[in-house]
Amino acid sequence: MTTTAKYLRFEAEGREKYGFLDGDKVRELAGHYVRTAVLTGVEYEFAKVKVLSPTVPSKVICIGLNYKAHAEERGKQLPEEPMMFLKPPSSIIGTGEEIVLPDIAKDVEYEGELAVVIGKRAYQVSAADAAQHVFGVTVLNDVSERYYQAKDGQWGRAKGFHTFCPLGPYVVSGLDYQNLQLETKINGVVKQSSSTADMIFTVNELVAFASQVMILEPGDILTTGTPAGVGPLRKGDLCEITLEGVGTLTNRVRA
Amino acid sequence: MTTTAKYLRFEAEGREKYGFLDGDKVRELAGHYVRTAVLTGVEYEFAKVKVLSPTVPSKVICIGLNYKAHAEERGKQLPEEPMMFLKPPSSIIGTGEEIVLPDIAKDVEYEGELAVVIGKRAYQVSAADAAQHVFGVTVLNDVSERYYQAKDGQWGRAKGFHTFCPLGPYVVSGLDYQNLQLETKINGVVKQSSSTADMIFTVNELVAFASQVMILEPGDILTTGTPAGVGPLRKGDLCEITLEGVGTLTNRVRA
Repeated sequence: MTTTAKYLRFEAEGREKYGFLDGDKVRELAGHYVRTAVLTGVEYEFAKVKVLSPTVPSKVICIGLNYKAHAEERGKQLPEEPMMFLKPPSSIIGTGEEIVLPDIAKDVEYEGELAVVIGKRAYQVSAADAAQHVFGVTVLNDVSERYYQAKDGQWGRAKGFHTFCPLGPYVVSGLDYQNLQLETKINGVVKQSSSTADMIFTVNELVAFASQVMILEPGDILTTGTPAGVGPLRKGDLCEITLEGVGTLTNRVRA
Repeated sequence: MTTTAKYLRFEAEGREKYGFLDGDKVRELAGHYVRTAVLTGVEYEFAKVKVLSPTVPSKVICIGLNYKAHAEERGKQLPEEPMMFLKPPSSIIGTGEEIVLPDIAKDVEYEGELAVVIGKRAYQVSAADAAQHVFGVTVLNDVSERYYQAKDGQWGRAKGFHTFCPLGPYVVSGLDYQNLQLETKINGVVKQSSSTADMIFTVNELVAFASQVMILEPGDILTTGTPAGVGPLRKGDLCEITLEGVGTLTNRVRA
């Protein structure tokens, strides 16, 4: 049996730190969990720390249309190869922070996803070797503005707005990440419910694919597409995305 | 008369440093030029330093189709609004480094561009205020693989390959950046020759536009589209892109 551990980035005593959960404590690490397992010996009560987005990546690589039923609901053909785009790191927020609908937005939707945190630099690795480069998995909401997504062609604007990349709360290592339940609730009502077993391209295939193109750096994010059931985010909505074994990414839309 | 200065990132004594050119010397700064003007007092002979890409941005924001004649040569309508996409920071190389054609590439082209380096954090600024957030300008080659650009729809792969973002050599402040000659030569033959006066959306309009969507951080790159005359990069080609007042970004394609 593999042991899993929940890693996080958090704020305590006015500073950003990395650590992992141990019951109701957070045990502080000497640096980013992708780089060190050395403990500082300092512990915090979990209830007293502020959970931040679990990493500050050099890039956020996203994959379009990686669940069959979502491709169908968007009226798209199944892809022959993964379709890759980027979200800017500036769009990341942590659990508990607010998603802000831009004044110019017309039609904003949630997209609950499993996201990989890269542990070890990866360049041109095979799918068979990809798992060695994955530190763990977390939850990502690929918030998308559908009007500009259709109008612009490229998705830099539609998916790049500030606060459009909620991420977290924890990064969990040691999970069988291709067999986890992923569920999105809006105001308590289940909207997306799928298994990561339903992906078209597996996590390891996506890591391998992206690594043929780019050097994946430790702490980088690769997110793996959303299942069926996407829908609107309106002012005041509560969005909760739960990944089995990881936890719930909770964000309210600013009223 | 405005004074211009040429800033750079460079390697000396095995370490990365920031500084500016002063005749045949490089005067070292105490940190990134976007953050400090404090001199360390240390000088290096320019001939003995290695010029690096002038910044390591948190994002590279790109604009498609921003010169009329280029939109025509690509068979595209003129855009009503700027079209925005991202290149990964991992694709950046400095002047003098080699562009590597990926094994899977079929049709790689150069795109010489003026790129802005953000000086002061910008979020939802107006075009009238944008210039205050621009530290200076440099040269960027938005290297693009046309087969995947057409096939994928999104350009994350086609424009995101490793080494596909040559940047530099210097960042120059104080220029009238809307009125500079931009020229690309392949193996000594002029292929692109235009003025930045021919942009559809001005630099300041693009900074304002991008800042409506994303927080632009100091050191970030916003590139402004390529003029007409794009064409192939083949093994062994020498690509030289010159921006008036800035200098020449020189990269050979690995043979």
